Amino acid sequence: MTKNRQKILETEFHVRYAETDAMGVVHHATYLIYFEEGRSQYMRDHGFDFSSIEKEGFRFPVTEVGVRYIGSFRYGDKVKIQTKIEENRSRSVTFAYDVLNPGTGERLVSGFTKHIWTDSEGNVTRMPQKWLELSL
Amino acid sequence: MTKNRQKILETEFHVRYAETDAMGVVHHATYLIYFEEGRSQYMRDHGFDFSSIEKEGFRFPVTEVGVRYIGSFRYGDKVKIQTKIEENRSRSVTFAYDVLNPGTGERLVSGFTKHIWTDSEGNVTRMPQKWLELSL
Amino acid sequence: MTKNRQKILETEFHVRYAETDAMGVVHHATYLIYFEEGRSQYMRDHGFDFSSIEKEGFRFPVTEVGVRYIGSFRYGDKVKIQTKIEENRSRSVTFAYDVLNPGTGERLVSGFTKHIWTDSEGNVTRMPQKWLELSL
Amino acid sequence: MTKNRQKILETEFHVRYAETDAMGVVHHATYLIYFEEGRSQYMRDHGFDFSSIEKEGFRFPVTEVGVRYIGSFRYGDKVKIQTKIEENRSRSVTFAYDVLNPGTGERLVSGFTKHIWTDSEGNVTRMPQKWLELSL
Repeated sequence: MTKNRQKILETEFHVRYAETDAMGVVHHATYLIYFEEGRSQYMRDHGFDFSSIEKEGFRFPVTEVGVRYIGSFRYGDKVKIQTKIEENRSRSVTFAYDVLNPGTGERLVSGFTKHIWTDSEGNVTRMPQKWLELSL
Repeated sequence: MTKNRQKILETEFHVRYAETDAMGVVHHATYLIYFEEGRSQYMRDHGFDFSSIEKEGFRFPVTEVGVRYIGSFRYGDKVKIQTKIEENRSRSVTFAYDVLNPGTGERLVSGFTKHIWTDSEGNVTRMPQKWLELSL
Repeated sequence: MTKNRQKILETEFHVRYAETDAMGVVHHATYLIYFEEGRSQYMRDHGFDFSSIEKEGFRFPVTEVGVRYIGSFRYGDKVKIQTKIEENRSRSVTFAYDVLNPGTGERLVSGFTKHIWTDSEGNVTRMPQKWLELSL
Repeated sequence: MTKNRQKILETEFHVRYAETDAMGVVHHATYLIYFEEGRSQYMRDHGFDFSSIEKEGFRFPVTEVGVRYIGSFRYGDKVKIQTKIEENRSRSVTFAYDVLNPGTGERLVSGFTKHIWTDSEGNVTRMPQKWLELSL
């Protein structure tokens, strides 16, 4: 089921002021939202319309996350997210993320999110046909 | 329809670190969430279970907000929200809020939110029977 | 002091999943963050580096906001923000925003934010020289 | 340096509407903020004023987090956070958290955050004297 895990999708955007905290840097919880943004872009770039999958009754909840913080970003900094699929199973997917300073290429934050496919009642189910066809 | 607008509900909690920004104070968008918290507590205190109303098909979207910022709060500060209903009509409700420093009683932020009652498709509707019975 | 108020800056991005709420649409407080994003982009596009202004000791707190909600956005929707300066005074600036569906051009949310220039202790001050030179 | 790791601090509050997402449940990034709230309360309960420690020049950035999601919370649900110190070293602290349904006692989310003590420039430093004196 797991093919070509090497595809990496890059997303860039600026740090928003609301994402900073009193330490002057991006609040650590924000990176889960950055990861989600990388993941969303990954799906959009592969022509996978998550909203329509949700309408078909699929859910894709997060079951586990891990983040390591090496450095930090400040308001206005540009952020580059590299997103890839680490593991793609019939009932679960693991994404891995690196958050880089696009100027220096330095990796400042990294992490992963693990997801399962469920129906709208939360019962674990097999991946949607459209996801299978992506042959990620 | 509008009776006794003088009931004021007070809610207190601490500023969370994630709510601050690089200026060292609570980010201005956060006060809409504080207002929402005041409003939620107001409903809970009046025995109005908003979740069950949502299940009955009612929605209560915000149609307008206004906020004035006089002072600011920092991480760990205690915040007191005073919430009252300014106007209670058959199809809309306006809440007014004051956010106080509970130590000094000083009002640091104030504002209002206006809401309409709709069905789950977003069509404007009359208030739920349970809301009417509250005689706010 | 107020010249050419007609310059409009457009910013586009996708709705993030974290920005939605249980009604399935973008939470109303999020639009203040969208406005901030429009304002940030406006400054960046005019070559105004807010971070360096902050290092010079200037602050630019929000003193008032107002938002009107006509329609709503969902996860994955593209959002277009139109940002302009409504009033540019020696000690205060008012920005106005329209949030459009970029497909239809329909305006779904609009609002304003009013700001004052202060020093790092919060005392009202005249606009930074660099802001003056922008001749917005 | 590590004494009595068994002290558990319990914090309870309600889920805010803004914390939910389009799946109808609390967004997964929110739990890092809940953890932070548990940690803040832990410190407050031990008489440790983090704000004053920050003014002394100490910072306490997060270097690593992990979260496991077993179940979910909805708007208005009461949330109970159990916070304890897992490891208390001279230059780092690890907190562990369980997020429970206070009605059933069921654990729905768990996780940890690892922190280091630094000065205001981000250089790793020994714990503040006041933290040492807490003998956690």
